Amino acid sequence: MTSLVVLSGGLDSTVCMAVAEPPIVALTFDYGQRHRSEIDHAAGVAGYYEADHVVVRLDLTGWGGSALTDASIDLPAPVPGADATAGGIPVTYVPARNLIFLSVAMGVAEARGLDTVYLGVNALDYSGYPDCRPEFIESFQATAALALKRGVDGRPVEIRTPLIDLTKADIVRLGVERGAPLHLTWSCYRGGTVPCGSCDSCALRAKGFAEAGVVDPAL
Amino acid sequence: MTSLVVLSGGLDSTVCMAVAEPPIVALTFDYGQRHRSEIDHAAGVAGYYEADHVVVRLDLTGWGGSALTDASIDLPAPVPGADATAGGIPVTYVPARNLIFLSVAMGVAEARGLDTVYLGVNALDYSGYPDCRPEFIESFQATAALALKRGVDGRPVEIRTPLIDLTKADIVRLGVERGAPLHLTWSCYRGGTVPCGSCDSCALRAKGFAEAGVVDPAL
Repeated sequence: MTSLVVLSGGLDSTVCMAVAEPPIVALTFDYGQRHRSEIDHAAGVAGYYEADHVVVRLDLTGWGGSALTDASIDLPAPVPGADATAGGIPVTYVPARNLIFLSVAMGVAEARGLDTVYLGVNALDYSGYPDCRPEFIESFQATAALALKRGVDGRPVEIRTPLIDLTKADIVRLGVERGAPLHLTWSCYRGGTVPCGSCDSCALRAKGFAEAGVVDPAL
Repeated sequence: MTSLVVLSGGLDSTVCMAVAEPPIVALTFDYGQRHRSEIDHAAGVAGYYEADHVVVRLDLTGWGGSALTDASIDLPAPVPGADATAGGIPVTYVPARNLIFLSVAMGVAEARGLDTVYLGVNALDYSGYPDCRPEFIESFQATAALALKRGVDGRPVEIRTPLIDLTKADIVRLGVERGAPLHLTWSCYRGGTVPCGSCDSCALRAKGFAEAGVVDPAL
């Protein structure tokens, strides 16, 4: 079995690295995100697992439409005590991001003869992005089987989303249990050298570590 | 109505430009293809229609697996009199190409508020690529509706494939009827300054013009 892991360098995708069957190809996207330091963190995690690290450049900044790729859209101001998962699809949504990432992952998997693609999406403690829902993943799997030579040949590349039904606390626990290098991860949406502690992603991460009773080793 | 056309600069996508409702955003991929001159031809066609031309760089050459992107794989030698559409999926198949192209097109369409995406796929006189079949397009449309904010909002981006049931001769006729700038198009898979006349793509094009009784204005 050979695996491809879509690796952002954050908590979820790093736990996927710990779960995936080696040998692993780790696939990271350099898409013009504000939080570019996550790419360096991805390289660190890939190195930890001695994975082949493929970085694909795909500049989404010219399209606009997301606070993560468009500097003219402000990241939401922190709201003390607010539920980061409430309030519908947030401005940090990037149009078609997981659709694009999974499509490229399928192309790499087919070209390199890999059997499985791991994506660290999560539909419980998440940010309300439509492309993190199980119904999207299932539909994508069927579509990819029609698009790929391997699908036509009856050997589709299997998409695995081992975190999809887990809470953030469950993900932290799973990472600790599998010895994932959580100290190497980066979750913050903002650039900079230390996490801001107040964006959606920092808030979800903090909640997960707190509920799991684990001290975040990256802070 | 606003349209996005996936424009390679070849015959089929140029006829799509002639069919699409303006204003048009033309989307071209620079993916490391051998036939890079098609990008210049796409720019010429986009200019002819005064379309906003977006060129997305996505380097697929490192993946291997296709004669179109991997210089170490030979393009098939010409076989006089052979049927270019026979023989299963050819070496010019690029893993996940239309899956990736449509996904990026959806992202651009959503970011820019466009209503329709045109793709010049064709399932009659075609090269046997699985991602040109109607069942793939239909499945992708459903998957994209689950991935995009617009889908969740009940206003999915509509994919149109106006050439899917046409023969190559029908496509030539439609292009002539709509005044498409066929003299600006490039279909050959090989690089160079004149079409080779012998690759699958040249063979299909020549068949189409011959059956339509039209002299190819690009030769």
